[in-house]
Amino acid sequence: MFTRPDVLPGTRAAACFNQFKRQPPLIHCLTNEVVQELTANVLLALGASPAMVVEPEEAAQFSRVADALLINIGTLHASRAESMLAAIEAANRADKPWLLDPVAVGGLEYRATFARRLLTLRPAAIRGNASEIIALSGLQTSARGVDSQDDSLVALPAARVLASNCGAIVAVTGETDYITDGERDWAVTGGDVLMTRVVGTGCALSAVVAAFCSLPGDRLDNVATACRVMALCGERATAQCSGPGSFTAAFLDALHQLRMEDLL
Amino acid sequence: MFTRPDVLPGTRAAACFNQFKRQPPLIHCLTNEVVQELTANVLLALGASPAMVVEPEEAAQFSRVADALLINIGTLHASRAESMLAAIEAANRADKPWLLDPVAVGGLEYRATFARRLLTLRPAAIRGNASEIIALSGLQTSARGVDSQDDSLVALPAARVLASNCGAIVAVTGETDYITDGERDWAVTGGDVLMTRVVGTGCALSAVVAAFCSLPGDRLDNVATACRVMALCGERATAQCSGPGSFTAAFLDALHQLRMEDLL
Amino acid sequence: MFTRPDVLPGTRAAACFNQFKRQPPLIHCLTNEVVQELTANVLLALGASPAMVVEPEEAAQFSRVADALLINIGTLHASRAESMLAAIEAANRADKPWLLDPVAVGGLEYRATFARRLLTLRPAAIRGNASEIIALSGLQTSARGVDSQDDSLVALPAARVLASNCGAIVAVTGETDYITDGERDWAVTGGDVLMTRVVGTGCALSAVVAAFCSLPGDRLDNVATACRVMALCGERATAQCSGPGSFTAAFLDALHQLRMEDLL
Repeated sequence: MFTRPDVLPGTRAAACFNQFKRQPPLIHCLTNEVVQELTANVLLALGASPAMVVEPEEAAQFSRVADALLINIGTLHASRAESMLAAIEAANRADKPWLLDPVAVGGLEYRATFARRLLTLRPAAIRGNASEIIALSGLQTSARGVDSQDDSLVALPAARVLASNCGAIVAVTGETDYITDGERDWAVTGGDVLMTRVVGTGCALSAVVAAFCSLPGDRLDNVATACRVMALCGERATAQCSGPGSFTAAFLDALHQLRMEDLL
Repeated sequence: MFTRPDVLPGTRAAACFNQFKRQPPLIHCLTNEVVQELTANVLLALGASPAMVVEPEEAAQFSRVADALLINIGTLHASRAESMLAAIEAANRADKPWLLDPVAVGGLEYRATFARRLLTLRPAAIRGNASEIIALSGLQTSARGVDSQDDSLVALPAARVLASNCGAIVAVTGETDYITDGERDWAVTGGDVLMTRVVGTGCALSAVVAAFCSLPGDRLDNVATACRVMALCGERATAQCSGPGSFTAAFLDALHQLRMEDLL
Repeated sequence: MFTRPDVLPGTRAAACFNQFKRQPPLIHCLTNEVVQELTANVLLALGASPAMVVEPEEAAQFSRVADALLINIGTLHASRAESMLAAIEAANRADKPWLLDPVAVGGLEYRATFARRLLTLRPAAIRGNASEIIALSGLQTSARGVDSQDDSLVALPAARVLASNCGAIVAVTGETDYITDGERDWAVTGGDVLMTRVVGTGCALSAVVAAFCSLPGDRLDNVATACRVMALCGERATAQCSGPGSFTAAFLDALHQLRMEDLL
């Protein structure tokens, strides 16, 4: 029988977030062309440091120094794919965690082939919407474009399979987020549908998940906390804004103002 | 004798917009590096779905699935040009409309040669400022950089020639926008000069025009409606903001809040 | 004995700014992928015109037409490096000033090698944080990532050496900015630490410095004025905003509203 996962307790989220704020990490972001500014600003608002270093030689050098690596295939092309592979190899050698955001992996062959190759390179975490996680797990999906058609709970079994096969934490995000290591799960609530009308909120979440993967302690809790931080601030920003334009400023302000106590 | 075109009637604009909102399209955007985030956010605010898929193989695959394709040559380079050609060919085979935004085509040889080649590939629509449309039509222009020096009405004859030669709708935008199929024209008013102080408002308009090209019905009306939607929301945002910084949020909010009745 | 530089007098800043507003320049920006939109919007808010032309052939053609050229190596890769070299050579031949922003040059070999090559190509100005300027001058630095660990005053001797060796104005920016031609210096105060929580404020400053390099008159005063304009507007924006999200809109609005008298 299928059991709906428990919600991440606020005390755990607060403890993880406290650790994050005490030593904000440096994140190497190899992400898509569209969302780089928002991704950087989300990390900066939380106190972390983003850097985008893209030439293969430098990307490898920098991954050894950074605390975590983000790989987002939204605008994958051949030369950037080369940089990603160099950065991942260097991160793995230096024992630095890296995260995969398999944007729109469902219907597009080139990135699907690349993403399957990346799955063999030991990602610490994978963050996607339901259709992306289902596609990556090997099940079929009918997703069209980058917006998910499936409910995230429907994708949880696929997320568990993917987590077990890769040894990664998998976060399948949507109206409710589910985070699993294949055996244990957390649910995270919050956020608002308005966030789907702002490009890059999911991609920025992946950057924050990558950042939280660099923390010590239980990685399942850390990844779930990243999701909770973004959902809570998304909810607060929605309450204060008049639409998707004013959302972004309110969201970044909320991330900047977030305190440990807010998560309890 | 030269007749000044009539203004697009609000009833036509409202009908087109209603159709758009009932089935918001998925737009494949191959656009310039500077404006990708705003372009995506404008489409999202209107309820449409943007996607940027750039590797040639994938770009072709995706153009067959998307409802329309945007080609913007603002930061054209050799490898992206290859992706554009692959995407256009696939769109044409799948009978999906594509739009050309010939950014700064006036003074730069590399993009001018490329744009002339694109004109032979049956664009559904072309959107540019006066100097760009004049340059593309084969007439001389003295434009310097991307900001137009010419009034859009001066460019209307060139727009008509271009439309007739290409079988495309041509929108020449400025203080007043003129939209022509070579024989029939519409004028669209609204907007504000402040929009020229925000990068990408014209490029985002081109994305919206591409989106409206995917609608059934009279394409001249559809393209003119896209221009009217953006001009009206630009005007509303200007009335509410304190400068070009606060304009952007107000503009996206206005696009998100726009209802059919507002166009009447 | 080390003398702390004098603060740029408001009368000089006002005179330079007045000149800028009377004939706002066209700036060719070859900058990093993350900050292009903000860079363009900052220039537009001040009344200047940005353009990003990236294919080598076009980049060279455009540099001859533009009033100044910005070179920012934040996301340097091989093909863009080629464009930069073509643009710099064309700018030098046409006697147009160009500025180097040596982002994160401290710890990364590929860009350090490239930056050292650029130093031989007669930049009109160099703008960086303390660790970048120290690294570029040949001294050692322990900077990690793109955020500077050193105070800008500590880097002033390195800035003077770099300025003398290159025949360039060097601006080392931080809590206080120092601008030097190797012999004469100005200090510029203002700004706020919140600006370090918004990606691209430093990169946009470099674009503004490039723009002011195109003015006639004393280039040391012109560069220092660019720094003062940004610091003053950053300070005003900080006073009006609620965090790094709302900062950006307030900053662009402040730049747009700035009048000569405000600098006195």
